[in-house]
Amino acid sequence: MGLKRLKASVYQANMELKESGLVLFTFGNVSGVDREGNLVVIKPSGVPYDELSPENMVCVSLETGKVIDSDLNPSSDTPTHLELYRAFKACGGIVHTHSEYAAACAQARIPIRCMGTTHADYFYGDIPVTRELKKAETEENYEKNTGLVIVEAFESLCPEEIPAVLVANHGPFVWGQDPRKAVYHAVIVEFLAKMEVHASQLNPQAPRPPEHLIDKHYFRKHGKDAYYGQKKK
Amino acid sequence: MGLKRLKASVYQANMELKESGLVLFTFGNVSGVDREGNLVVIKPSGVPYDELSPENMVCVSLETGKVIDSDLNPSSDTPTHLELYRAFKACGGIVHTHSEYAAACAQARIPIRCMGTTHADYFYGDIPVTRELKKAETEENYEKNTGLVIVEAFESLCPEEIPAVLVANHGPFVWGQDPRKAVYHAVIVEFLAKMEVHASQLNPQAPRPPEHLIDKHYFRKHGKDAYYGQKKK
Amino acid sequence: MGLKRLKASVYQANMELKESGLVLFTFGNVSGVDREGNLVVIKPSGVPYDELSPENMVCVSLETGKVIDSDLNPSSDTPTHLELYRAFKACGGIVHTHSEYAAACAQARIPIRCMGTTHADYFYGDIPVTRELKKAETEENYEKNTGLVIVEAFESLCPEEIPAVLVANHGPFVWGQDPRKAVYHAVIVEFLAKMEVHASQLNPQAPRPPEHLIDKHYFRKHGKDAYYGQKKK
Amino acid sequence: MGLKRLKASVYQANMELKESGLVLFTFGNVSGVDREGNLVVIKPSGVPYDELSPENMVCVSLETGKVIDSDLNPSSDTPTHLELYRAFKACGGIVHTHSEYAAACAQARIPIRCMGTTHADYFYGDIPVTRELKKAETEENYEKNTGLVIVEAFESLCPEEIPAVLVANHGPFVWGQDPRKAVYHAVIVEFLAKMEVHASQLNPQAPRPPEHLIDKHYFRKHGKDAYYGQKKK
Repeated sequence: MGLKRLKASVYQANMELKESGLVLFTFGNVSGVDREGNLVVIKPSGVPYDELSPENMVCVSLETGKVIDSDLNPSSDTPTHLELYRAFKACGGIVHTHSEYAAACAQARIPIRCMGTTHADYFYGDIPVTRELKKAETEENYEKNTGLVIVEAFESLCPEEIPAVLVANHGPFVWGQDPRKAVYHAVIVEFLAKMEVHASQLNPQAPRPPEHLIDKHYFRKHGKDAYYGQKKK
Repeated sequence: MGLKRLKASVYQANMELKESGLVLFTFGNVSGVDREGNLVVIKPSGVPYDELSPENMVCVSLETGKVIDSDLNPSSDTPTHLELYRAFKACGGIVHTHSEYAAACAQARIPIRCMGTTHADYFYGDIPVTRELKKAETEENYEKNTGLVIVEAFESLCPEEIPAVLVANHGPFVWGQDPRKAVYHAVIVEFLAKMEVHASQLNPQAPRPPEHLIDKHYFRKHGKDAYYGQKKK
Repeated sequence: MGLKRLKASVYQANMELKESGLVLFTFGNVSGVDREGNLVVIKPSGVPYDELSPENMVCVSLETGKVIDSDLNPSSDTPTHLELYRAFKACGGIVHTHSEYAAACAQARIPIRCMGTTHADYFYGDIPVTRELKKAETEENYEKNTGLVIVEAFESLCPEEIPAVLVANHGPFVWGQDPRKAVYHAVIVEFLAKMEVHASQLNPQAPRPPEHLIDKHYFRKHGKDAYYGQKKK
Repeated sequence: MGLKRLKASVYQANMELKESGLVLFTFGNVSGVDREGNLVVIKPSGVPYDELSPENMVCVSLETGKVIDSDLNPSSDTPTHLELYRAFKACGGIVHTHSEYAAACAQARIPIRCMGTTHADYFYGDIPVTRELKKAETEENYEKNTGLVIVEAFESLCPEEIPAVLVANHGPFVWGQDPRKAVYHAVIVEFLAKMEVHASQLNPQAPRPPEHLIDKHYFRKHGKDAYYGQKKK
């Protein structure tokens, strides 16, 4: 993918994030990666959404994190995004938000459990919460270490099957094949978090759905036997 | 009803569903039935709402489930709809959603109780939750079996008096005399689910309303002694 | 007030009710009274809000409840409104809604407690819940008896100071000096009900505000020593 | 700052408050201060937002509270604003709202705890609740005394680091360097209150975030080592 096309795609995903209602003010950011060029494009830091353009998206090196071609600072969360792109090879786009319900789950330090088919249609298991960062990890290279604890949380999980995480006391990082898919997933994560709040009010002891139901819904939409939607031409 | 008119009606009901705010992205689907022609018309699978038209609604045989006249796949939930049309003879339209509060009730595995007049104006009793599907029922003919457990849940209930159900760990299926009435009912179901969440927060031990109140409200609007609204001309 | 002006005012209040977001579909109704003419004007039963006009508001006799000049049925709740106008002499307009949070309080059978200044600015004390209707009261003259249990709930309360009530397992009836003030109060009632839900989540044991605070806020806005707002010219 | 510019800024901030969705009807008010001129400009009392203009903002003396140049009454909360400007020297603008979730926290009498990075990005610690006013404090000079109990609540807190407070059984007062920043903070306060409601539902025993995380986020955005956003030119 050319850099120009990547910037357009990252810009568009940032605007869709704004329209989705998941972000207040300048909160949140979306990035995308060019695996061949080893480049990451991300929203500039603290710039209001209505001042964004494809041109002011910031390009940094995936390897070094250095800004390639901009006078603007990239999002302060850039080192987190970079760690995720380095560890999760199939990930093409990443979103970070403080969306209301998902961030509340992160503050409550509870995973978004896989309690139904809406969840299993997109996430093959609970959306985990990271461990707390240690003092030294926070004080030096905080944003990079945030990326590393996310990667740690996926030691025994597959980031393609569960493309989201809650950073403890912070908020969700969500990813996908490309920046727009990542935003799509972030909207789903917020929706699932809302259902967790309501269902925990109604019946905190509700049983988990059987595994076969989760398998059915996940694999109805993913993998070689998927049969949801229209045949790709 | 001619097929063209049925397609128009199913299309319109799908658009009303989208406008109602009950659905995210491509979630949800509405169908309608032509009892004389033994035909069911339903939303195509995974197509965004703004690409829908009366023409791309998919027509299938009520008996066999075979697509009659389309290159598009019908909603993957079509076999569920078919079972409901087969068992509930007075049902003219069906909606399936993952609407936030009703789906949360389904995940909490609790019925939407008849706790007041808003409920009794439309539903003559609790909106039930289905049992869990067994492993074999999920692995083979999942969508058809989803229909069958709904029918099972109505063994001792009248589907005309309670035109809605929560499928365990999934979400609501709602029906009515025609596709638009089904959507109307789906909006009410979501509203009732919201009230259940709020009321269970305020007072989980609140007493049930007396039966005579439920009778009064249901029969004020339904049956031969109804006196709500204007005289039909 | 002339009948034409009353119809215009009741129509306008019904439209403001619709715009307030408190009503779904045809739920809810507003009425107004002409004390000199002994007339009540109210929304027709079951007619969608976008088909309302000043002309199709229905006029009934305050004394007999008979329709004066219309082919349309008045709201089925008309006999409730009439009882309130008969008992609460200072009441000029009445609204009935099933607004989400207030109706949830009615289903939870709990009053909206006076827990702060937002409440005390408009309501001088808890908004009460009626008792349940008895079987005979429901089966005969249900709507009239609903009015009578509301009046009963105000035996030791002042309807001018607390212009709202929750009918058990039903929803709020709210009133004011005129139809638009009644709608204004209905919006406040819904807002207060929302705060009760949130605050009961956060701290169900929260202490009541001191009486002097309630007095201060209520009398800052009401009565001869009021000093809120601009001097009336 | 000239008076004309201050009035324009206070007017604009009041309109942003209205657009933010934090206020119902005429609830809420924003003020700004001219430290050199010893003047405070504030919304007139009880005037609907759509009748506001830069010209009808009311100017009062910071020292005496006397109206300088208007026939309109200033907001009845003016004496509260004045006490805050007198005690909090760095404060340039103040907002008072009854916003739904923050006012519910005030009614629940619980602080908005610093449970995550969204909070620590703006507020360096819990947002406190004032003590109750005594009877004498309420009956005489109520609004001035409201200001004084707020100041009392900050005896051992820094009002620049925690620019918000919940007045017990009333609602939030929020401030900032200028009127628009104050409104910005009021929106954040409401958002944080929402997260407290949701998180307390999900897990009331959730641990506090470590102090180093709070330090990191607060000082990433504030003070001499801030590195969030773009370099100021």
